[in-house]
Amino acid sequence: MGPIPYGMIGGGQGAFIGGVHRTAAAIAGNWQLVAGALSSTPEKARTSGAEIGLPADRTYGSWSEMLEREAALPADRRIEAVAIVTPNYAHAAPAIAALEAGFDVIIDKPLADCVEAARAIADAVAHTGRRIAVTHTYTGYPLVKQARALVASGKFGKVRRVAVKYTQDWLSRAADLENNKQAAWRVDPAQSGDAGAFGDIGTHAANLAEFITGERITRICAELTMLEGRRIDDDGAALFHLSGGGKGTLTASQVLVGDINDLAIDVYCDEAGLHWRQEEPNTLRIGYRDRPTEIWHAGANRAYLDPGILAIQRTPGGHPEGYLEAFANIYRAFGEQLRGAQVPDGEPGFATIADALRGMEFLRASLESSRNGAVWVDLEETKA
Amino acid sequence: MGPIPYGMIGGGQGAFIGGVHRTAAAIAGNWQLVAGALSSTPEKARTSGAEIGLPADRTYGSWSEMLEREAALPADRRIEAVAIVTPNYAHAAPAIAALEAGFDVIIDKPLADCVEAARAIADAVAHTGRRIAVTHTYTGYPLVKQARALVASGKFGKVRRVAVKYTQDWLSRAADLENNKQAAWRVDPAQSGDAGAFGDIGTHAANLAEFITGERITRICAELTMLEGRRIDDDGAALFHLSGGGKGTLTASQVLVGDINDLAIDVYCDEAGLHWRQEEPNTLRIGYRDRPTEIWHAGANRAYLDPGILAIQRTPGGHPEGYLEAFANIYRAFGEQLRGAQVPDGEPGFATIADALRGMEFLRASLESSRNGAVWVDLEETKA
Amino acid sequence: MGPIPYGMIGGGQGAFIGGVHRTAAAIAGNWQLVAGALSSTPEKARTSGAEIGLPADRTYGSWSEMLEREAALPADRRIEAVAIVTPNYAHAAPAIAALEAGFDVIIDKPLADCVEAARAIADAVAHTGRRIAVTHTYTGYPLVKQARALVASGKFGKVRRVAVKYTQDWLSRAADLENNKQAAWRVDPAQSGDAGAFGDIGTHAANLAEFITGERITRICAELTMLEGRRIDDDGAALFHLSGGGKGTLTASQVLVGDINDLAIDVYCDEAGLHWRQEEPNTLRIGYRDRPTEIWHAGANRAYLDPGILAIQRTPGGHPEGYLEAFANIYRAFGEQLRGAQVPDGEPGFATIADALRGMEFLRASLESSRNGAVWVDLEETKA
Amino acid sequence: MGPIPYGMIGGGQGAFIGGVHRTAAAIAGNWQLVAGALSSTPEKARTSGAEIGLPADRTYGSWSEMLEREAALPADRRIEAVAIVTPNYAHAAPAIAALEAGFDVIIDKPLADCVEAARAIADAVAHTGRRIAVTHTYTGYPLVKQARALVASGKFGKVRRVAVKYTQDWLSRAADLENNKQAAWRVDPAQSGDAGAFGDIGTHAANLAEFITGERITRICAELTMLEGRRIDDDGAALFHLSGGGKGTLTASQVLVGDINDLAIDVYCDEAGLHWRQEEPNTLRIGYRDRPTEIWHAGANRAYLDPGILAIQRTPGGHPEGYLEAFANIYRAFGEQLRGAQVPDGEPGFATIADALRGMEFLRASLESSRNGAVWVDLEETKA
Repeated sequence: MGPIPYGMIGGGQGAFIGGVHRTAAAIAGNWQLVAGALSSTPEKARTSGAEIGLPADRTYGSWSEMLEREAALPADRRIEAVAIVTPNYAHAAPAIAALEAGFDVIIDKPLADCVEAARAIADAVAHTGRRIAVTHTYTGYPLVKQARALVASGKFGKVRRVAVKYTQDWLSRAADLENNKQAAWRVDPAQSGDAGAFGDIGTHAANLAEFITGERITRICAELTMLEGRRIDDDGAALFHLSGGGKGTLTASQVLVGDINDLAIDVYCDEAGLHWRQEEPNTLRIGYRDRPTEIWHAGANRAYLDPGILAIQRTPGGHPEGYLEAFANIYRAFGEQLRGAQVPDGEPGFATIADALRGMEFLRASLESSRNGAVWVDLEETKA
Repeated sequence: MGPIPYGMIGGGQGAFIGGVHRTAAAIAGNWQLVAGALSSTPEKARTSGAEIGLPADRTYGSWSEMLEREAALPADRRIEAVAIVTPNYAHAAPAIAALEAGFDVIIDKPLADCVEAARAIADAVAHTGRRIAVTHTYTGYPLVKQARALVASGKFGKVRRVAVKYTQDWLSRAADLENNKQAAWRVDPAQSGDAGAFGDIGTHAANLAEFITGERITRICAELTMLEGRRIDDDGAALFHLSGGGKGTLTASQVLVGDINDLAIDVYCDEAGLHWRQEEPNTLRIGYRDRPTEIWHAGANRAYLDPGILAIQRTPGGHPEGYLEAFANIYRAFGEQLRGAQVPDGEPGFATIADALRGMEFLRASLESSRNGAVWVDLEETKA
Repeated sequence: MGPIPYGMIGGGQGAFIGGVHRTAAAIAGNWQLVAGALSSTPEKARTSGAEIGLPADRTYGSWSEMLEREAALPADRRIEAVAIVTPNYAHAAPAIAALEAGFDVIIDKPLADCVEAARAIADAVAHTGRRIAVTHTYTGYPLVKQARALVASGKFGKVRRVAVKYTQDWLSRAADLENNKQAAWRVDPAQSGDAGAFGDIGTHAANLAEFITGERITRICAELTMLEGRRIDDDGAALFHLSGGGKGTLTASQVLVGDINDLAIDVYCDEAGLHWRQEEPNTLRIGYRDRPTEIWHAGANRAYLDPGILAIQRTPGGHPEGYLEAFANIYRAFGEQLRGAQVPDGEPGFATIADALRGMEFLRASLESSRNGAVWVDLEETKA
Repeated sequence: MGPIPYGMIGGGQGAFIGGVHRTAAAIAGNWQLVAGALSSTPEKARTSGAEIGLPADRTYGSWSEMLEREAALPADRRIEAVAIVTPNYAHAAPAIAALEAGFDVIIDKPLADCVEAARAIADAVAHTGRRIAVTHTYTGYPLVKQARALVASGKFGKVRRVAVKYTQDWLSRAADLENNKQAAWRVDPAQSGDAGAFGDIGTHAANLAEFITGERITRICAELTMLEGRRIDDDGAALFHLSGGGKGTLTASQVLVGDINDLAIDVYCDEAGLHWRQEEPNTLRIGYRDRPTEIWHAGANRAYLDPGILAIQRTPGGHPEGYLEAFANIYRAFGEQLRGAQVPDGEPGFATIADALRGMEFLRASLESSRNGAVWVDLEETKA
C-alpha cells in the first residue's frame, strides 16, 4: 500500500504549525497531502492551496465542503485522514465532523479549548470507532522514548521527583500582543480557552512528565500569573504529585527572557537521574550515585538504544535530527497503525485521546488551583 | 597590621568543614590560626590540634577553656576572633560566649538549629557590639557577586521569576545514615534542628536567591518529604514570592541520584535571564530576547567585570577558582572589615546576622507550610 | 512553476545516502522524485524503486536507460535533473552522460574518485552549459553560513588560524571492513579512489574551512596513516596555509573511538574567534578579547541573524533543525537557481564545480605530501 | 615533623606567578614561607617582603645573600628548600647555587631559557644529590592524573592519536607588548630564550601529552609564526610522533582571540577517547564505540576514581577545585617526598628534571623544525 492520502484543515498563509505538519508528513514518508481547506476565508483557502501545490479541485473553501466532497469520492480516490491545525477553539467542530464522516484524524495539541469540547471529541472517537492522534511533538524525540523505556524497565527503581519546565520569551513584552498572528489568538481566552501559557506549553510539559514516568499527575498546586494588562496567564509554576508517589515541579512561561523554547525535564529515580532538554535533543544525560555520568547519543546505529528506538531514526549517530523529525515520528507511527501495525509495548508513538483528556484535566485543575490562591486540587481520572 | 590571629571551635579529626575553613583562611591570606578547641572530647581536641600543627599550649580541651585563657592573654598576643564549625545545635553557646568574651565570630551556616538560638546569637551581637560573619559559601563566588551587581544596577529591569535548586545524592539510600559522621548529626532533629535538607542546603538556595535578587522571600508554599524510615526531611520543593513582586521555585534535596552538589539558579528579569551553576562557577550565562546569549567569564583580568569583583580574584581568566577560593573570599572580606575596610556598596562580602535570621525564618515558614499540607505561609520580617 | 521533477541514480536498498537525498528533497519542497535507476543490478533497481513508491514505468534498470528514455519524453513530462548518489568511482560516467543528455545534476561529494574524473565532469559542465551542485552537506547549516557572512563582513579582521577536524569511529576495528556496505567500497582504492578518510570526510573539513574563511588552502603538509592491514588511509592530520596568509590544522579520521561524527571548526580572526560543531549545529560560539563570549542561536526568528539566513530556516529558535534540514537547504538553493533565482552575495547555497575541484586538489596534494614523508606540497589553482 | 620552611627567589610586587606559588604552598599545608629574595632590586625586594609579612631579617636583597646567610643558620632554623619564580633566563644561576648550597629546589617552568642552562641545572642536581621539582601545573589536576592512570592500565589499548592545544589571546594585539610586565620579558628572546608561545605554553601542552600517554614525543614538524613586528613566536602548530607509534597535533598560541587559557587535550586509544579541558577541570569525558559517553567527576568521594587520586582532593564531588589546588598538589607531593614519602607507581606528582629536559628538547626541535621550513626533526633522548 502506498502513502496515506490526507487533507489538511487550517494551515493557510501566515500560519506556522500547518507547514510543520506538512513537512513532518513528508519526512515520515507514509503520508501524502492531496486536499486542503486551509483557511476559514474561502479566498485565502484557495490562494494558500495553490501556493503549496494542491490541485485546484481539491482545494476547498471550507472544511465542511472538503469533508462532504471527499466522502463522496470513490474509496480509492478519497482522502483517508485529515490533519487539523486550526486554533484551539476551532478544533472540536471539524474533528467531530471528520470522525463522523469516516476519516481518521491527526490533530494539533491541545486537543481543544475546554474540557467540554475535548470530551465531545472523545465521545465522537468512541462512537465512530475512528482513530485519532494528538501531536504532542516532544514525545516524538527518540531519546524521550528511550528515557521512558528506561524508567519503564524498572531498573532504576521508582520515580522520586520530576522537575519539568517549558519556558519561552516571545511574549515577554507588552507589544508582543500586537501584529503577531500566533500571539493574537493564543492570548485571547475566547479563542484559545481559559489557559494561556499553561494551555499552550504547560500541557506539553505535563505530557512529557507523564510520558517519561509512565505515571499520572494526581494533584497540583499551581500559581499562574501574567504581565500587567494581560487577560490570560503567560507565566506560572506548580508543585504536583505523581500517581506512583513521586513529587514534581512544573514551570511554564512565555515571558522568561532568554529562554527560547526551553523544554527540559529531570526525572529522578531511586538509582538514576535522567535529564533531557529539547534544544539539544540528541543527548540524554543519566546521572548515577556510584559511577560516572552517562551521555546517551541518538542515532540509528547507537546499538545501546532499544531496537524500537533505533528503528525510527533516519540518520546514524552524530547526524542530528531535530524538531521536524520528532514531529515526523508521530505521523509515521500513526500512519503505520492506520495501516495495521501493532502498537509496540503499549506506547503507540503519539498522544492518544486519553493523553489529551488528561492534558485538559491538568489545565482545569491548574486554573482552579490558581484561582483559589494556589491551593491543592485533585485531578479527576479521565476516561477516553 | 599582620593577619588576624584566630582560634577554631570544632573541626577536629573526621570533620569536613573545619578543614575547609582553615584552608580558606590560608588562601585569604589575612588570617592566622593560632589556637583551637577542635573537639568536645578533650583528648581528641589535643590530638587534632597536634595534627594540624597548633602549638600545644594553645590547643584547648574545650571552647570555654579557650575563650577564658585567650581573653586572659595580653591584647597583642591573644586571638582576635573565633571560627565556629561545630554542628548546628552547638553553635549558639560558643558563639554567644565568644562574643561576650570580646571576640569577633565567623560561623558556619546555618546560624543555629532553631529560631530561638539564632535570636539569642543576634541579641548577643547587638549588645556586645562585636561583629559576626556567617559563611554562606556560595555568595563568595565572584560571578554570583557579578550577577547581584547586574540585577542591582537596574539595567535588566525587575525580577520576574527565580528558579533555584540545591540538590545532592549522598543520602539517597537508607544505609547512608550509618557510619557517616556528617550524615549522623545532620539527619537527627536533636542535633541539626527540625530541618534536614531544607536546613542544610535549602537555606543556601534561599540565601543565594535573596543575594542575587537583592529582595526578600515573603511567602512560601513548601512540601517537604523524606525516604521511608527517616525522621527529618531529605527532599522538598516550594513555590515562593519575592518582596519585589516576582515569583519563584526552590528545590532542596539530598536524595536525588546523580546530582552531586548541584546548586543552580536562574534569575529572570524584564530584559535578561541570568544563569549560574556552582559546579561550573567560572561562567555566568545571560540570555536576552533580541541578541546572542552571553557567557561571562571569571578572572582577575576580564575587564568587563565590575572593579570590586576583579579585585577579589587571584588568577587571570581561564585559571579556574573553585569552592575554596569562594570560601576564602568570605574570610578575606570579613578580615578586611575587622581591620577597618569600608563595606563596598552595601554588600559586605559575607552573610550578616540579618541574612542568617532570614534563613532561619525561611526554615520556620517552610516547615510550618509543609506540616500543614503545603499551604502558603508568610515569612515574618526579621530584625538583626 | 511546480517542483523540479528529478531522477535518482544509485540509492537502492541498503544504501544510506540515497535516502538522505530523497528526504532532503522532500523537506526542500521544490523537488519531486519521479524516476530512478537505483542500482547497477537491474533486478535490485526495480525492487528498490517499488519500495519507495516510484512508478514502475520510470523505474529503470540502468542509468543509461533512464537518461535515454527520459530525454525522449516530451519536455513537460521528462525529468529536469538527476541526483547522483553512487560510490565515488561511479560518479563521472553518469554525471557526464546526464549533462550531455541535457539534465542538470546534483551529485554527492566528493565529486569523483580522482582528479582526472573530476576534471572530465567539469569539462562536461563547461561545454554543455548545464548546472551542477555538489552536496557538501555541512555548508548547508544556517549558522555555518552565518559564520561565513561574519568573516566576509571584515568586522573581525583577517583570518589568523583555523583548526578543523572531522573525526568518526566507525572503522576503528579491523572487523569493520567486513559486512558493511559503506565500509566495503569506501576503503577499497579501486572504488573510492586513492583517499580513504581524507577523501570521504577530510574533503568536508577542507571545504568547510574554505567556505567559512572565504579563502583557499594553498599549501599542505599531511601525514596519513591507517590501521594495520588496511590499504587506504583511515586517519591523518595536516598543517596548511590559507590564501590570505593564515595558518591551519586539519584532522580527518574514521578510527578515533568515541567521536561519532565530529566535524568541528575554530576560525580565529584578528578580533574574534568563531566556533561551530556539527553535532550541536544550532549554536555558534564567538569569543572576544574584551567582552563576554557570545552564543548565537539558530532560528527563523533570531533577528540578529542575517536576513538570508533567517529566510532558509523552517522553524523558530529553539526548535532544532538538523542534518536533513541542512541537506535540504542545498536542494532548495539549487532548485531555486534552476528556477531562475539570483545567487545571493556570491554564495550560491551549494558547492560548485570549482569548490569540488579544489576538494580534489586538496586530496591530491594531501596524498602526495603524505607519500613523500609529510613534506609541504603546493595546491595548484583550479579552474572550473 | 612540621611544614618545610622555604625561601622564595623572585615573586616581588607586580609578579603573578610568585603569589601563585605562595598560595599553592599554603593550600598544600606542608610548606611554610620563612625567607625571600623577591626581587633583583634590593629595595624592591625589601618592600615586597614586608608586604607579604616576611620577617625583615629574612628578607634578603639578593638570592646569593639569602643562600649564603640561610646556609649559615643552624640546621633546625634554616630554610630547607627554595622556590624559584624568576623569569626563564634567570633560572639557572640561582637554581644551581641553591642546589650547591644544599637546598632542594622547586622551580617554575620552563626549567630554563635554553638547553645549555637546563643541562647545567640537571648536572647540578646529579652531582649535589639534591632534589628538584618543576611546576608544570596542569599535571597537578586530579583528573589529569586519572586520565594517565587509565591509559597506563592498558584497558583502553594503545594510544592512536593525541590532539593537544594551549591557546590564549592576551598578546593578540600589537599594543600588548607595552606596559605589561609579563609580556615584556616573555616576548624578548634575551630574557625568555628563543621560544615565545611555544616555550611559555607549548611546553605545558607537550608535557601534558607525554604525561597522560606515558610516552615521549619523538619527532616533530612545527611551524611557528608571529604577528608583524614581533621578534619571537606567538603562535604555532605542529604534527608529532609518539614513542608508542601514535600520532599527534599540537597548537600553542597567545594571539587566538577569545581563547582565554584554553589548554585542552584529546587522547584516543584503541578502545576509548579521553578528553580533558583545563578551564573546566573537574570533569573528564571518555567516549566509547559501543556504549554511552562517560563524564567522570572530580571529588574526594567519587569512589570510581583511583585511591591515589581520591587522596589528593580536598573537597567532595561538586565542590570545584581549580588552578590553585592543582598547583598545591605539586607542592604537597614534592613536600611529602622531601619528608620521605614513597613515589606512588612511578608518578611522583610533579615534573622531574627528566621531564623538564624533554621539554627543552621539545622546544629545541620545534624551533629547528620551524626555522627550516617546518620539516621533520627528531627529538634526541634526554638523560637527567
